[in-house]
Amino acid sequence: MVNSSVVNTYPLSSYSFGTKEPKMEKDTSVADRLARMKLNYMKEGMRTSVEAILLVQEHNHPHILLLQIGNTFCKLPGGRLKPGENEVEGLKRKLSSKLAANSPNMQPNWQIGECVAVWWRPNFETIMYPYCPPHISKPKECKKLYVVHLSEREYFAVPKNLKLLAVPLFELYDNVQRYGPVISTIPQQLSRFQFNMISS
Amino acid sequence: MVNSSVVNTYPLSSYSFGTKEPKMEKDTSVADRLARMKLNYMKEGMRTSVEAILLVQEHNHPHILLLQIGNTFCKLPGGRLKPGENEVEGLKRKLSSKLAANSPNMQPNWQIGECVAVWWRPNFETIMYPYCPPHISKPKECKKLYVVHLSEREYFAVPKNLKLLAVPLFELYDNVQRYGPVISTIPQQLSRFQFNMISS
Repeated sequence: MVNSSVVNTYPLSSYSFGTKEPKMEKDTSVADRLARMKLNYMKEGMRTSVEAILLVQEHNHPHILLLQIGNTFCKLPGGRLKPGENEVEGLKRKLSSKLAANSPNMQPNWQIGECVAVWWRPNFETIMYPYCPPHISKPKECKKLYVVHLSEREYFAVPKNLKLLAVPLFELYDNVQRYGPVISTIPQQLSRFQFNMISS
Repeated sequence: MVNSSVVNTYPLSSYSFGTKEPKMEKDTSVADRLARMKLNYMKEGMRTSVEAILLVQEHNHPHILLLQIGNTFCKLPGGRLKPGENEVEGLKRKLSSKLAANSPNMQPNWQIGECVAVWWRPNFETIMYPYCPPHISKPKECKKLYVVHLSEREYFAVPKNLKLLAVPLFELYDNVQRYGPVISTIPQQLSRFQFNMISS
């Protein structure tokens, strides 16, 4: 783990991108997703998920890499941990599954940094809160967002059904309609970091 | 400075509160405030202000101490640094000015913790952003929010024209209308902290 409030950000052009086989969503509707969540909760207890904030720069402004599904929905790369799995190791596993080539010797150097936000899902519903609400003793999910420090050059393999977008902080800020409450407040959570913008 | 992501929070009832002479606002309107800001900028350059997030607990949920002016407007305790002043020392000075008795031996033990957010004012206007917007080379103000760790018992002296309120995170969250963009996203910025709720 990298424990630093300085983040080196390299130009988007210093990374290269290819494609790989599609990674389909496990559910085709929100109702299916919540039903599967309930089933998993009964088997394994509270779900812990980990997501990555991968930063690049364009025009000296920080951008975040988001995976776009279809034409509208965006998400951070990451996913659910296996029961008992270490958060940092689990996030690396999820990042490789979503963004790395299949060859084991072409894995990016995922340097997991600080946890910047924790969100709680009190019920089997879509709404989450940045605290465990009072009177909720058994939350259903805890989602943790980590800054991930990228090296100067990397190769990313993007599943064919997804698009990888570099979205500037100024586009995310105050844009809950487009990005939802978790992603739209990433600019506030990153505001305490110092970005060391490196040109190519 | 205290560099810890664990925050001990004590019940509101473990603190005692008195009053002291009023601390009037320097400006009577937003226009006056922005005009004074402009004048100060010409003399001293970019304004740096520091504000404190003071935490207590009620019913095992974190609450933040806010100063209320009149019946609506709430602000964090803090204020503008003198040119060249150290941020941590300046925040202690401002906290004592706003919340401590006048006697030097009755000062609370202000333990300044981590910086959790930085906001930028690009122009002599009320709007601020959690990043310095692109193409702004001379921002007019930089405001930093720090977590402040309170000891188990303290005495606070509140200026007679202000009210000190303990506001729960669930009241601040998603309530930009009432608290503005800076205060309403404090729950997200605190979400990565672990609150050690201590009963009296």
